[in-house]
Amino acid sequence: MPSSTPTSPGRFAGLTPLLAPRSIAILGASNDATRIGGRPIAFMKAAGKFQGAIYPVNPNRAEVQGLRAYPSVADLPETPDAAIIAVPAALAVQAVEDLGRRGTKAAIMFTAGFAEVDEAGAAEQARMVAAARAHGMRLLGPNCLGVFDGRTGYYATFSSSFDSGWPVPGRIGIASQSGAYGTHLYTLARNRGIGASLCIMTGNEADVTVGECIGWLAENPEVDVIAAYIEGIREAPGLIAAFETARAARKPIVMMKVGRSALGSAAAKSHTASIAGDDAVTEAVMAEFGVVRARTSEEMLDIAQTATRRIYPARNTLGMITLSGGAGVLVSDVAEQAGLAMPPMPEDAQAKLKELVSFCAPRNPVDATAQVGNDLNLLTPFFESLIRDGGYSSILGFFTMVASSRRWPAMLEKLNEVRARYPDRLYVLSAIAPEAATRAMEADGWVCHEDPSRAVAAIAAMGRFGEAFAAPPPAAPPVVPPVVLPAATPSEAEAKRLLAQAGIACAPEAACADADAAVAAAAGFGYPVVLKILSPDILHKSEIGGVLLDVADAGAVRAGVATLLERARAHAPAARIEGVLVAKQLKGGVECILGIHQDPVFGPMAMFGLGGVFVEVLKDVVFRRCPFGEDVAAAMIRAIKGFPLLDGARGRPKADVAALASMLARLSSFAVAAGPRLGSIDLNPVFAMPAGEGAFAADAVIEVAT
Amino acid sequence: MPSSTPTSPGRFAGLTPLLAPRSIAILGASNDATRIGGRPIAFMKAAGKFQGAIYPVNPNRAEVQGLRAYPSVADLPETPDAAIIAVPAALAVQAVEDLGRRGTKAAIMFTAGFAEVDEAGAAEQARMVAAARAHGMRLLGPNCLGVFDGRTGYYATFSSSFDSGWPVPGRIGIASQSGAYGTHLYTLARNRGIGASLCIMTGNEADVTVGECIGWLAENPEVDVIAAYIEGIREAPGLIAAFETARAARKPIVMMKVGRSALGSAAAKSHTASIAGDDAVTEAVMAEFGVVRARTSEEMLDIAQTATRRIYPARNTLGMITLSGGAGVLVSDVAEQAGLAMPPMPEDAQAKLKELVSFCAPRNPVDATAQVGNDLNLLTPFFESLIRDGGYSSILGFFTMVASSRRWPAMLEKLNEVRARYPDRLYVLSAIAPEAATRAMEADGWVCHEDPSRAVAAIAAMGRFGEAFAAPPPAAPPVVPPVVLPAATPSEAEAKRLLAQAGIACAPEAACADADAAVAAAAGFGYPVVLKILSPDILHKSEIGGVLLDVADAGAVRAGVATLLERARAHAPAARIEGVLVAKQLKGGVECILGIHQDPVFGPMAMFGLGGVFVEVLKDVVFRRCPFGEDVAAAMIRAIKGFPLLDGARGRPKADVAALASMLARLSSFAVAAGPRLGSIDLNPVFAMPAGEGAFAADAVIEVAT
Repeated sequence: MPSSTPTSPGRFAGLTPLLAPRSIAILGASNDATRIGGRPIAFMKAAGKFQGAIYPVNPNRAEVQGLRAYPSVADLPETPDAAIIAVPAALAVQAVEDLGRRGTKAAIMFTAGFAEVDEAGAAEQARMVAAARAHGMRLLGPNCLGVFDGRTGYYATFSSSFDSGWPVPGRIGIASQSGAYGTHLYTLARNRGIGASLCIMTGNEADVTVGECIGWLAENPEVDVIAAYIEGIREAPGLIAAFETARAARKPIVMMKVGRSALGSAAAKSHTASIAGDDAVTEAVMAEFGVVRARTSEEMLDIAQTATRRIYPARNTLGMITLSGGAGVLVSDVAEQAGLAMPPMPEDAQAKLKELVSFCAPRNPVDATAQVGNDLNLLTPFFESLIRDGGYSSILGFFTMVASSRRWPAMLEKLNEVRARYPDRLYVLSAIAPEAATRAMEADGWVCHEDPSRAVAAIAAMGRFGEAFAAPPPAAPPVVPPVVLPAATPSEAEAKRLLAQAGIACAPEAACADADAAVAAAAGFGYPVVLKILSPDILHKSEIGGVLLDVADAGAVRAGVATLLERARAHAPAARIEGVLVAKQLKGGVECILGIHQDPVFGPMAMFGLGGVFVEVLKDVVFRRCPFGEDVAAAMIRAIKGFPLLDGARGRPKADVAALASMLARLSSFAVAAGPRLGSIDLNPVFAMPAGEGAFAADAVIEVAT
Repeated sequence: MPSSTPTSPGRFAGLTPLLAPRSIAILGASNDATRIGGRPIAFMKAAGKFQGAIYPVNPNRAEVQGLRAYPSVADLPETPDAAIIAVPAALAVQAVEDLGRRGTKAAIMFTAGFAEVDEAGAAEQARMVAAARAHGMRLLGPNCLGVFDGRTGYYATFSSSFDSGWPVPGRIGIASQSGAYGTHLYTLARNRGIGASLCIMTGNEADVTVGECIGWLAENPEVDVIAAYIEGIREAPGLIAAFETARAARKPIVMMKVGRSALGSAAAKSHTASIAGDDAVTEAVMAEFGVVRARTSEEMLDIAQTATRRIYPARNTLGMITLSGGAGVLVSDVAEQAGLAMPPMPEDAQAKLKELVSFCAPRNPVDATAQVGNDLNLLTPFFESLIRDGGYSSILGFFTMVASSRRWPAMLEKLNEVRARYPDRLYVLSAIAPEAATRAMEADGWVCHEDPSRAVAAIAAMGRFGEAFAAPPPAAPPVVPPVVLPAATPSEAEAKRLLAQAGIACAPEAACADADAAVAAAAGFGYPVVLKILSPDILHKSEIGGVLLDVADAGAVRAGVATLLERARAHAPAARIEGVLVAKQLKGGVECILGIHQDPVFGPMAMFGLGGVFVEVLKDVVFRRCPFGEDVAAAMIRAIKGFPLLDGARGRPKADVAALASMLARLSSFAVAAGPRLGSIDLNPVFAMPAGEGAFAADAVIEVAT
């Protein structure tokens, strides 16, 4: 059960020799500072901060870039914590073997030409991993751009991104599968004056995964915020443990996951040897742990930068002060769309502001008007009332080009005086100011976003982190008895019997061998009934006309049984026919779909949606890793767009959401108990009856992997 | 019929004295360059470009800021084209009167305290407009920040946005209802090095509207691109004519419309005296004319800047070259979401690129790999193949921090050489470069957007402009006979009779005075039938249980008639009961809703959606100004998310979309023919039958304003 994986402190400590080594060797060290075997040495020498030993390994030179070089790993004076491998592909496995024998704990494999190229490369990569594992050595890459840390001066990378300047130390950690994108993001951050401590790029992920790197960053006391870039997830346990570690440490993760589009997935496959997982599944896993997904690099940096203030309100509210009404309208629009509450100021506080400036708009957004921009004595009471009386957790000041005016330094001083009295709030400025002034304001505790729309998106993300950090532990998943799957995909009746053992209610029904039995069963349920062909060999009954609805009386039952048997003979002559299933036809319920599918990375995932067009045309469904309790199930049900249909829209009675949630949670436990031979489950339709009357599966298909 | 308003050349020429005067007076001229009556003079003197005469008017001074001042308008040596009014509110109407008498053609009213404040102010504003109109004078404002033109040095504004620098002349025109937002946008543009010719801010819009200003910009040969900011639209004719003028002149309009949210609308009302129109209606009008809506200021500038290249492909395709696969995946995702096609490179071209770099990904995005970044001789064939062989209308180069590297100048030279051979494409660079380098590349014909997601959004917008510019003229709306609405809201039967005259088909039905007549009618249609109470006083029949479905035989018809009459007596004792309506119950169709509502600004708007939950829960509807032809109607039908349901999803037959489109177009003509007394129309449900079998309204409500 992945959601209860125990997370011991320091679970990711095994990556420390890789990511923060005390000494490093460079295999394939070059005297040419522009070659990939030369760059790391040149970077570390030029930055001059790395405290450990640097050991060039080169059989042809006694000295490399002024450092003593060694002919082989065996000749090194000590066992290095880590080694960079920058040798030709043909020599790579031997290099790993040499390092492993020497006892080196970690290798960074720059060398490319493995799984990302062809099958032969994949086989060579497998040999490389086997060699590393045999010696307990961790391996970053191959085909990776490595790792660097501007704080410690550790540059195990051949990135060309330092042409435009050295790293700025800071408290954001970057973990990226793509080297180019990792350094791109890092460069954007640096240009904004945002410091990053580490930037780790995992390449082919033959061994070390981006999930583990996130976990190590979550455990690293120098890191407050984690920015991650992912194309496809290779393994769940490391990623899940990393997400758990970060949440427990109250470290927000903002993640970009590309490969959403058909095109994108194609590109992801040709780019790395990655399997781009189902996007909806990945998104569900992120949502489970409060990981915020960024759609663009700018959004990623906006959120990461704002998060470095470490203010994550569990109930986020936004108060805004502006000197112009127009921006208030814009921000209200964006906040509503982002789900960020902007409650009004208290009535009495509004009245007091009206006394100060009769034509101000004091509700929230508080439009203090240009008069307040011209009269500093008014600015303080307006700003302080917003904070003190409004009580908002996040404060946005929109000062646009006023922040480029001659008045601004005096205004900023007033704002800072007030801010110092309420240090627990998140303060964001949307202003057009020269870059140096912006940096100074940021150093002083403001977060500056020139564009108010971007400011609002970043503020809203802080609330999502806060909610995740403050969430109570989820309820335990329902306990279900052991599930023994049959050898092959069971019939509908057998599937329902298995599900019933787990407490999943099905519409009352009976398996009947002939028409007489069917008439007797129907009389017992009351008309109308549903008739279905009963065969372990016919999985999708409706496709052969094997389901009859609204069967109204005994005569219709007899006629219907004959019709079904005839259709089965015609369409599936080889199928074993066990008779018909007679079921009570449920009326007045809302049709839903509950399903399970096996994700290759995350295992069984539960799906919930409304029936029919909602799933098939509108894709209005929600996913979650199994298993989970009724609280999570209820939240899933409420998360779909069509939820009003279950909640009394259009004059209907409210549906029995509690029963539906119970069924969904039980299904999730059932899926885990069924083990890896479970292929998929479809309960379609499930009728959610009016509140208090339960929820019943009217059809059930369990596919078993043979 | 607004869509066929004739647009004569120079239709907006009447605004020229206001927006490009040859001489200007300043009423309330101040010697203090920081006061609102002093700023315009100070700006025009400091900028030193304005070629016309400047006449300060001030009864107390002989000289203002070194210029000769005049005691009154009557004392001016000539009639100025335009005048700025910066006097106290109490003197404002008199100032308008004085200027009108003198023959001045235009006034810019800075003075505030009118309709935006209270009823008394609104009355005073009405007097001001009456005075201006009596003399044929146009009035900008009141409560407005005026207008400025960096090209001509015309500064009829008291904006404080010039503290950080003077305007940069350019070919983007800005029209904004909000002064603060207009100057905000303008300042952002200038900081990006984007020039704006004019920036016009309309304030209260007592007379001149933002629509007219857009129209004038569309006619101005110095303007190529129009950026507009709107909170609420006051009048349709000017805006529609402006949109038509701009489209005819192939000048793109990018527009920000705020007030989408409930909060936003509230803020818009408190901020100006504006009526924030229904957002869906405004969006429909923008879509009609190919006006692209921007959601943020950055998006607005991204699009406007890209549009200054004046390349608007009617069939936009994107080809991308990158040195990193990760960015390709990201861009593919964003392009798919933006509806921007990225077709693959031709197979033979891909093969040739593979020969050059065996591990490149040549499909599109073309990942040329870092090798091409290191070998300039490879860059040219890759870039040229993308352009020549791919044939894409838009080319995106993603070079990230390579553009900050020492290699970049040589690479850029190669790229520019190729580009010069294919000048008809749109070239966009996504790169991290120093600002001066970015400006130089832009001056050289590139569009630079650091963030690839923003680049894609801007490129996609160019295609939307291109589609609008290339669109054939729409089909003529159907001709319907004159509509004579009754004095009050008609009964369902009468409503259907009126609609039938316009060719709108209703389900076969008969008005029956009693049960015998109902049984006879039902026998004629065939069972089952629908029974409905028939009364001009009961509009919403289903609310009183006045509709019975699935009435199966003669006995059920008699029982049903009795039930309906009983329910009508119980729930609406005063209603005139004319009997019952018997209708054939249509089976097998898709339920749709067609409706009309009167928008206070744009007149009758047609709505289309699927029935039931699609409209009421999911709001999956589309709007359009009436009238329109079947081509537009068909496009509306295809635009809803649920369209697959009409197009054969889930094994259904395809619906008769042609009949549905014909009905929708006829309804739009009917709505216009019905005139302003028409309140609304609801055809709900309309059954779209399988293709070839037509579409029939099963219920019709026409509300008439009394």
